[in-house]
Amino acid sequence: MSRHQKRVTLEEVARVAGVSRATVSRVVNGVTSVDENIRQTVERAISTTGYLPNLAARALVTRRADAIALVLPSENRIVGDPFFTRIVRGVSTVLRPLGVHLVLMMTGADTGEQVIADLRQGRLDGVILVHTYQADPLPGLLVRNRQPVVLSARPAEPIPITYVDVNQTAGGALAAEHLVARGCRRVATITGSLDRPPGQDRLAGFRDAMAESGQPGVVSVEGDFTRESGAAAMERLITEHPDVDGVFIASDLMAEGALPVLRRHGRAVPDDIAVVGFDDSSAALSCDPPLTTVRQPVEDMAAEMARQLLRQVEQVDTPVRSVIFEPSLVVRQSA
Amino acid sequence: MSRHQKRVTLEEVARVAGVSRATVSRVVNGVTSVDENIRQTVERAISTTGYLPNLAARALVTRRADAIALVLPSENRIVGDPFFTRIVRGVSTVLRPLGVHLVLMMTGADTGEQVIADLRQGRLDGVILVHTYQADPLPGLLVRNRQPVVLSARPAEPIPITYVDVNQTAGGALAAEHLVARGCRRVATITGSLDRPPGQDRLAGFRDAMAESGQPGVVSVEGDFTRESGAAAMERLITEHPDVDGVFIASDLMAEGALPVLRRHGRAVPDDIAVVGFDDSSAALSCDPPLTTVRQPVEDMAAEMARQLLRQVEQVDTPVRSVIFEPSLVVRQSA
Repeated sequence: MSRHQKRVTLEEVARVAGVSRATVSRVVNGVTSVDENIRQTVERAISTTGYLPNLAARALVTRRADAIALVLPSENRIVGDPFFTRIVRGVSTVLRPLGVHLVLMMTGADTGEQVIADLRQGRLDGVILVHTYQADPLPGLLVRNRQPVVLSARPAEPIPITYVDVNQTAGGALAAEHLVARGCRRVATITGSLDRPPGQDRLAGFRDAMAESGQPGVVSVEGDFTRESGAAAMERLITEHPDVDGVFIASDLMAEGALPVLRRHGRAVPDDIAVVGFDDSSAALSCDPPLTTVRQPVEDMAAEMARQLLRQVEQVDTPVRSVIFEPSLVVRQSA
Repeated sequence: MSRHQKRVTLEEVARVAGVSRATVSRVVNGVTSVDENIRQTVERAISTTGYLPNLAARALVTRRADAIALVLPSENRIVGDPFFTRIVRGVSTVLRPLGVHLVLMMTGADTGEQVIADLRQGRLDGVILVHTYQADPLPGLLVRNRQPVVLSARPAEPIPITYVDVNQTAGGALAAEHLVARGCRRVATITGSLDRPPGQDRLAGFRDAMAESGQPGVVSVEGDFTRESGAAAMERLITEHPDVDGVFIASDLMAEGALPVLRRHGRAVPDDIAVVGFDDSSAALSCDPPLTTVRQPVEDMAAEMARQLLRQVEQVDTPVRSVIFEPSLVVRQSA
């Protein structure tokens, strides 16, 4: 027998359990103050009768799905990116007390279509987009359709969309100031993807601050935020500029790839070369030596994304906002 | 104005767009074969009228949420565990083509209550539980309530529940055979948490295979699957048993913590000490040297969990099943 053929009412459960309809309702809704014996009696009655209440009835009235999507890039680079888990934790702290479901989606060819259909059909109330790429049509599509949406970083193209970001240029500057204060004189940087605002802005902030402290024209090698690209970029950097004594690497994951390369080239960190990362992800702690890094308050940023999204769900035509968090420097052993 | 006050019909959208009701329906449902100009006309009409179809009506009929929960432990140890991302990818490959939402939940004090309420209220169809701990009441609660549920590993207590697992003892044996074949004569192991079946079974498989090859009574130090515990256990192992020449570490993450400890003690890997990990997660690649490890086919296992769960959603009283995948050895440079 399919469970979906059952049509037992709340009253029937109450009759079988020998309690009031209100008591059954409280058990069904997970109210904690119900007496344990009564709860068990009701749960047995629910099990016996096969009662299945349906929130769909409520959703018909409120026109709310009480569900929002977190859309993540499916690229290989994200597998194992600790950033992802921190975002989920931050978003959950806001959604969970409200009983709003967090629906996880990885981008694919049909993501835009699926998300728009889910929003129109009332299966989702809004969307948080993480790490979109330059040509991603989804942000623009959601804005044109006047759907609730929040981006995890400044959009690559100037569209009116709410986003939460860290002050990326200030983060680059923090790294520069720390390397200069250590006395590094031949400083270089391994950048993130320069087709994305975070890659661009971290580089700009770093370069400008180095120039201000009297070291213009800093050498840079482009990576793409992955561990592998960090290793490849460091190999090139150390070969072409063997006298470098300080490096700002624009993500902890790239730094994790770069440190073994320095070790193989016989360079001690931080004594021969000081290294500063970016993110303060768990990768910073798995580095040997543990990484000095620019911290993004990712959990707080993700919670703010959830709050901004819920505001839009509550009220159409909420004004577009950008919320910028300040980075900080976490000093460990690599610089 | 709240978006939830709008009550525009499909017919009204069709009238404004000057197309048939069926065409509007196809656009709303994200059908790809709709002519681009017509689609844009309909989308404008949807935007103008503020039409919001609602899947809740369908859910009332099917009594399906078309949503399943993936419940993950919220302990700190999981932050940044690459295992998590692989599970999401595997589950998504099955759910996505079916349009079933993957709802992510982290365990907390009220998880059991919330999940049961969501299931009863028709907001969820079933639950995949990942990495539960020994005393977790949730598996038993779901079984007693006859709700669709799949565990990611053999349950700690013998309850009738469907689960998907890797052959953990065979994995431990693979590690033992590889170390023996390399010629290691003083072999030890750093175990996972011994209050969980994976920790217990990997140790048992390793010990038995070592005994069979003439090395009974292998030294073991207990970790808890975290990077930090791997470092602490290796520190103890190398201090108390300085002549060890091969170590099986029961997770890649623990191995990642252990390798820098060996380096600090002046031990070369694999020449002085060979190291074999477990999981073949991205941590195996971030190790220096890259880790020889026992591979769990996590993505395939996760996809199977999703299939087993959907079977139960389709049909109550589906017989309980256990599906066991075989591990394999991935040889890199650490052993």
